[in-house]
Amino acid sequence: MCEDCGCASPGHDHKVVDVHESLLSANDALAAKNKEHIEELGAIGINLISSPGSGKTTLLEKTIEHLADELRIGVIEGDIETERDADRIRAKGVPVVQLTTGGACHLDASLVHKGIHALEHQLGDGKLDLLFIENVGNLVCPATFYLGEHKRVVMISVPEGPDKPAKYPKAFIGSDVFMISKTDLLPYFDFSQEMAIKDALQLNPHLMVMSVSSTTGDGFEGWLSFLRSLRQ
Amino acid sequence: MCEDCGCASPGHDHKVVDVHESLLSANDALAAKNKEHIEELGAIGINLISSPGSGKTTLLEKTIEHLADELRIGVIEGDIETERDADRIRAKGVPVVQLTTGGACHLDASLVHKGIHALEHQLGDGKLDLLFIENVGNLVCPATFYLGEHKRVVMISVPEGPDKPAKYPKAFIGSDVFMISKTDLLPYFDFSQEMAIKDALQLNPHLMVMSVSSTTGDGFEGWLSFLRSLRQ
Repeated sequence: MCEDCGCASPGHDHKVVDVHESLLSANDALAAKNKEHIEELGAIGINLISSPGSGKTTLLEKTIEHLADELRIGVIEGDIETERDADRIRAKGVPVVQLTTGGACHLDASLVHKGIHALEHQLGDGKLDLLFIENVGNLVCPATFYLGEHKRVVMISVPEGPDKPAKYPKAFIGSDVFMISKTDLLPYFDFSQEMAIKDALQLNPHLMVMSVSSTTGDGFEGWLSFLRSLRQ
Repeated sequence: MCEDCGCASPGHDHKVVDVHESLLSANDALAAKNKEHIEELGAIGINLISSPGSGKTTLLEKTIEHLADELRIGVIEGDIETERDADRIRAKGVPVVQLTTGGACHLDASLVHKGIHALEHQLGDGKLDLLFIENVGNLVCPATFYLGEHKRVVMISVPEGPDKPAKYPKAFIGSDVFMISKTDLLPYFDFSQEMAIKDALQLNPHLMVMSVSSTTGDGFEGWLSFLRSLRQ
């Protein structure tokens, strides 16, 4: 704080904190309704959080390829702009809704609520087993907004480096699964899985840890078993 | 919007929009002061924006190695948690200040203001030529907050994929330089530089485009020339 300039930190304005807390509590109430809606569709909801480009959409494409014959999968795609991710998922033949936030850095329960209704419309009388919600690529803000999911997966890819859990703790504290992706790239990077996992478990000892490569399929069996177990 | 549930979108509450706009205008006023402070230090300020793990800190390490003999460099590091990035920069022998946002997803002008004062304290009567401000790893929120920098650099790394300009437009619209990093990894990825550059230039035709590898040094000469040109 600079006494000369007299500049206050606008981030700590009390009015803003109050409004923010009221927004979060409105979000949580709506998220609880989303959870009921997801269950009415017969599904378990999974919220997927990572930085841009960690491989969320590719993970979903490969997951659908593996599981489409045994489980009914639906996807809600969150992006700031473009239909590109939904187009990729649609090509796999499953119902998908693209939500664009128009600038906002995360999905919130209200947007996802619209997404669930739009998906319901596509399904008609059909049901789902798994509903994936791919969040906006952002390792920070999505961690604050509960969407009504049953499980939350936080992913970092090998090229991002192993220091991410320590530097972006909130997403790890609030998740059920910590996935390390793009493990086929381990030979090209100085990436210590031990360090990443140790830091993540220190933040949240209940995390289920998985390492996968969507390219080679390494580690995929563990991920698929986890998804199957949600339906048993 | 679901008529049955009657749930409104909390993101569009007018009170929130008003508070947000007032925050942004307070931020911009303070950022203008930051710019003056940076100039009093003799420096040009450069705000570096990217996702987590795109290689911001490594770029700075290599830049310091190349330029430390000709230009006086200072660094302000922004992170949510940890001193890890500042420790890496400190090891290169230049003055550095670590700012931790304590949860916030971006630096703002107020925090950077504190950082400039802390850096000034380290410098004593010394001056700087370049002041790098490494933002929190986030391709979304930092784009909204002017910090008082003279130049803004947005970076995406090859492993993130070429669709990032289209999907995260704001950071590209507001930047001066678009840098593609980790180009040594091009042989291992289906990354179209043409697509990334075309999308970025469509958003902002004034972007200066650079491709670099901090590992091999490819493309570094262009980046260094750009930095030297800022001081001429």
